[in-house]
Formats: sequence, C-alpha cells, structure tokens
Amino acid sequence: MKFNKKLANIKTYEAGKPIELVVREFGIEPKDIVKLASNENPYGCSLQVQESVKNIVANMALYPDDSMFKLKDALAERFEVKSENIIIGSGSDQVIEFVMHAKANKHSKILTNSVTFAMYEIYAKHIGAEVVKTSSQEHNLDEFYKLYKEHKPAIIFLCTPNNPTGDAIDANELYSFLDKIDENTLVVVDGAYMEYAIKKDSSKAIYPKDIVASYENVIYLGTFSKAYGLGGMRVGYGVAKTGIVKELYKLRPPFNITTLSLEAATVALQDSVFVEESIEKNFEQMKRYEAFAQAQGLEYINSYTNFITLFFQSHSSTEVADTLLRKGMIVRDLKGYGLNAIRVTVGTEQQNNRFFELMQAIL
Amino acid sequence: MKFNKKLANIKTYEAGKPIELVVREFGIEPKDIVKLASNENPYGCSLQVQESVKNIVANMALYPDDSMFKLKDALAERFEVKSENIIIGSGSDQVIEFVMHAKANKHSKILTNSVTFAMYEIYAKHIGAEVVKTSSQEHNLDEFYKLYKEHKPAIIFLCTPNNPTGDAIDANELYSFLDKIDENTLVVVDGAYMEYAIKKDSSKAIYPKDIVASYENVIYLGTFSKAYGLGGMRVGYGVAKTGIVKELYKLRPPFNITTLSLEAATVALQDSVFVEESIEKNFEQMKRYEAFAQAQGLEYINSYTNFITLFFQSHSSTEVADTLLRKGMIVRDLKGYGLNAIRVTVGTEQQNNRFFELMQAIL
Repeated sequence: MKFNKKLANIKTYEAGKPIELVVREFGIEPKDIVKLASNENPYGCSLQVQESVKNIVANMALYPDDSMFKLKDALAERFEVKSENIIIGSGSDQVIEFVMHAKANKHSKILTNSVTFAMYEIYAKHIGAEVVKTSSQEHNLDEFYKLYKEHKPAIIFLCTPNNPTGDAIDANELYSFLDKIDENTLVVVDGAYMEYAIKKDSSKAIYPKDIVASYENVIYLGTFSKAYGLGGMRVGYGVAKTGIVKELYKLRPPFNITTLSLEAATVALQDSVFVEESIEKNFEQMKRYEAFAQAQGLEYINSYTNFITLFFQSHSSTEVADTLLRKGMIVRDLKGYGLNAIRVTVGTEQQNNRFFELMQAIL
Repeated sequence: MKFNKKLANIKTYEAGKPIELVVREFGIEPKDIVKLASNENPYGCSLQVQESVKNIVANMALYPDDSMFKLKDALAERFEVKSENIIIGSGSDQVIEFVMHAKANKHSKILTNSVTFAMYEIYAKHIGAEVVKTSSQEHNLDEFYKLYKEHKPAIIFLCTPNNPTGDAIDANELYSFLDKIDENTLVVVDGAYMEYAIKKDSSKAIYPKDIVASYENVIYLGTFSKAYGLGGMRVGYGVAKTGIVKELYKLRPPFNITTLSLEAATVALQDSVFVEESIEKNFEQMKRYEAFAQAQGLEYINSYTNFITLFFQSHSSTEVADTLLRKGMIVRDLKGYGLNAIRVTVGTEQQNNRFFELMQAIL
C-alpha cells in the first residue's frame, strides 16, 4: 500500500526513556532508578490536585466538558486575557500541530533555532514543509531576522527559555523583533518553561497579555507539564488574538484532553504555593549543579528552566549517558542535536546527590 | 493573517451537551440532569479501574511510558494479534486522523456512508479531501462498491455497528466486500460499538485477528470509550498489518494518551465482568425502549449498540430534543444528519424511567 510521500521523511520523536523501559531492559528495580530526562517536576504534583482527581475518578466514564469553560476561564483570569483568547491542547505540542496545519503547507518554510524543541521540525515534516534553521546555538534574533527576510517563512518558532539548552531571550529584544515581522507571518513564542524564567530574571519575562494586546500574528504557548507538575496529563495552551484562536479551533478534535486532565489543570492553577515552592527549590538545587560543573571543569549554559545542559571535552556525551543509564540514572544525550552534551533535569536534593556521585565516578 | 484555504470549509464537531453546560444555561441542578446524549457507559467504569487510578495519582507528574508496552501487550493478547499490529490513539478519533493524514490529501476522495460518524468527514476536511457518500441510510455494500469503482477513493470508512443509527453490517458481507477492494485503497472498519454487537448477534462479529490475517489494506478501530466505560479518558486503538501500523506511527505525537489513561485502559481489560454486565443490562433496558417505541407508534432502528434511534412523524426531532433539554434530559437530535429522529443512549433503569416519563408528556 502506498502512503503519502512526506511520511518517508519523518523521524519520530525520541522521548526520554521511561522508568518502565529501564526496568525491562536492564533489570534494575524501579526504586533504584532516577529519571532526570524529561524535565518533569521532581516534586510531583500538588496534593490538592491529587485529592480533587481522586474524588472524581468515577467521572472517567464521562466525556469532558468540551467547552472547557472552567479551565479557560481560570487561565483567562490568571493571564488577564479573555477566554476567547485561549485554546487548549493535549500538551502545547498539540497547539504546535494546529498552528502547523492551519498556517503552513508543503510549499511553506518554517524558521526555527538551530537547537530547539524537536517537535517543531517533526510537525513541519508531517505536512512536508521545509525547515530553515539558524546557525547560532542560542537564539540570535538578528540572524532570525536575516533568515526571515531571505526565506519568507510561514511560521517562526521562538522557544524561550529554550529547550534543550535552557537559555532565554531578553523580553525587550523579543518585542523589538516581533515589531519588525509582517502580519502574515505567524510567530510562535513557546514559553513552556516561562514560570522558571520569570522567577529567575524579570528581564526575560514574556506575558501573554502583552502578546495579545500588541500582535495580530503572534501566539504564546504554555504548559501544565513543567512547573505545574502535570507532565502525564497532557495539557497545554495557546494564547493569542481571537483571529488566530478561531482558526486553530477549526482543527481541534473534540475532547482533546481527558476529564481528569481538565480537573487537574483547573485545580493546579489554584495551588500557587506548590508551583512557587517547586521553582524555589529548583533554583536552590540548580546552584549545586553550577558548583559541580565548575569544580569538574565542565561548561554549562546558564539555565532559566528546570534543567541544565552540561558539555564535555574529553568524554563522549553518548558514553556518559549510557554509563549513567546502566546505573539507573536516566538523562538526555544531546548528540542528536549536534551537541557533545547531556541535558539533566534538576531533581530533588537526593536525586541530585545520586547524579553527582555517579558523575564523579565517570569523570 | 491568512490561513490555509481548507479551513474555510471545516465545520466543528457538535459534541453532546455536557451536564456542566445545561447547569449553566438552564440553571438546572446537576442531580436533576440526565445525559443520554454521548453513548457513555451509564454504569460508569469498573471499580477496579477506579481504585488503580486513585493509587497512582502522584504519577500525574510523570510522562506516560510512550512505548505503551503493557497496554499494547494486553490488547494483543485479547485480540490474538501481535503488539506490533496495534497503534494507540487519543480516542479512536485520533487513529482516524492518522489514517487521513497518512493516506489521503487534497486530491483524494474519501467514501463513507450517508449517515455515519461525523469525524470521518471533519478529518477529511482538515486535509481538503473530497467526501463521497452513499445514499442509503444503512450501509449498503453494493452501493459502496459501485461508488468505489466510480470514484477510486483513497480511504473507505465502514462503521459497524454504525453511529448514529445503531445498525450493523453482516460479517460475511463485510469480508466479501473487503475481498473485492484493491490493495491500494485503505478500508477502515470502525468497531467502536463492536462489543455490544458481538453479544447481540454473532453474525455481526468482526474480529481484529481476521482483519490482520487476511488484509494488507484494512485497519480495525476500537475504543475504551463505550463498553469499557472510559469515555473521559480518551483511549482508542487501531489494529492492522504492521505495514499500516508503522506508517501511522510516524504521525503519532509522543505521549498521545495520559499516564492515568494508560493505567485505566490496561486495568479495564482485566475486568471483563464489568464489561459483560454493562452489556447485559444494556440489552435488557433496550427492550424497554423497543416496547416504548412500539406502544407509542414510533419507528426505531434495531440497534446493536448502547443507543437507539427513534423517528418522529408528527413531531420535529429538534423540538422534542429541546423540550427534553429544558427538563434536564440531554439526547442527540439527528436533524443535522438529515433524519427527523433523536439518538438516545440506553441509560440505567432509573434514567430510562425518566426518559419515558418525559416523552409521554411530549407525545
């Protein structure tokens, strides 16, 4: 049977290895495995969220409220926008998918950073669009502008803070860049880790209301998977002018998040103490990673997220990641991104102790 | 901002009104609302599933095992196929979406029954494909074959039992039809309600293993949303030869079902008592609907599902559905499908009592 030609070019996303897989492949007990590979919240999720979900497990039989009234209302209040400015996705991934299918096609170009979230390119390949990338490792908006003028992309993806490197774009620079982009080019500002950046440095803070107030052609993306500790529940969102949201809504499948996900995300927005504490502990533990890297003479990128990228000189990142894996420590090798580096989620104090201990044996 | 032209033709899916909406719009107390509009399992979901999900709510922070090892293994065992023959979707809807994007494009035609599950047409419009429909209300495979020869569709959708009418295709007729279709036309056999049909009449039973054994170009779809009582958890699946599954996998986004959905579906497969009892009670209650319709002189379709379609002569189905809605009884008006009929989920004894009581006041 013949399928669409574009499928031949699609590489599937390589997810962080789940604990279950390491148990099966290496015969390591689940309790001895530490996963610092997917930038999940190491403090889990809010107890308030857990209780509320437990209370409605009988509702698993019922389709969710497809209007997502409560969640959109809560997000609108949080971001000081209107409910009509919001679209919910099964992870912010799905909003990226909507954007791609709504705005681009096989004749389009997509502009992204050289090293960035892999799903932009994967979704571009789903529709057969061409991906143009910058050469700089960090977002260089001058280079973005030059490539934008040259290639006239349908969509530009800016990821700030950037995954998998952790650096963030200066807010003023970002707004100056957006001011120069024509209204028929859609710009995606992916703020999956923005809660962390806002806490660390207000000059990196991008607020959805400022995007909505000023730009006809920009959509802000956020997620419940990171600071809110709901990676397993698949809830993300896009915030933009209604002109964009209405078009994306046409591609949203009904019931695209689960009944329990809807409840979890709505309640998660109420428990700001959990989120604040997670972020504070994250940056306390981040200092230990910076000190460790300095002591070991490893280069690292100053991170505005819940992960840190460590570079190697005299080791192969793939070998380091493999050795760690065999000891039950799962991190992300960035060789596939062209970097001799690993990306490590900043875990709990105990998880990080284990990481430092294993790394010391390797280095 | 300009978007892809195809978006102009997309009508969004009209979901059954959720209870929350009726509470908000009509000010009716949740306890006084009966929803028989979305063919959810009125007996809820297995207590075993509820317990197992409660036990892992802390895992909401963790991405699901993206290999879906356990669930695919359990499904493979259930259906006597291999794990490689299975792809999991966020509802079987998502597998329909994969099929559409993998096999069809804006130059393709899609063949469906005149009255059938709305998402086939909606996903076809997402890619700008043309939809050709039969004229018969029930699946007439001779007409399907004639249109297949005439239009050379990329994909044929057969829905058995059919939603929203409830009738089912004879298994022998279906296999004879499949035998006549060329290998480059993909046929989707959507068995979302098949568990009910198998119980009612074995001559309607389609088994995934027979599809996998005999056809290079056919995919069977199933779901946990109906008999398994997990409509809110968004888990469906496709079963086919690996040649098809591998291609569809290229379009599957990572983590396309939630951590709790993965657990719920896996455990649901173990509790066959819940499923069997739900189906038995369904057909006991179905008899009451048939008796009611006969007593009131309403035509109905012999149903192999957990819903029944009732036709009106001297009333407008829209008015009937509206009157019921104002009393807190949610059913599905089929006027949009060209039928002066309502589709009613067969509920619990008490829910059905309420339906008969309200209907008697209307007729």
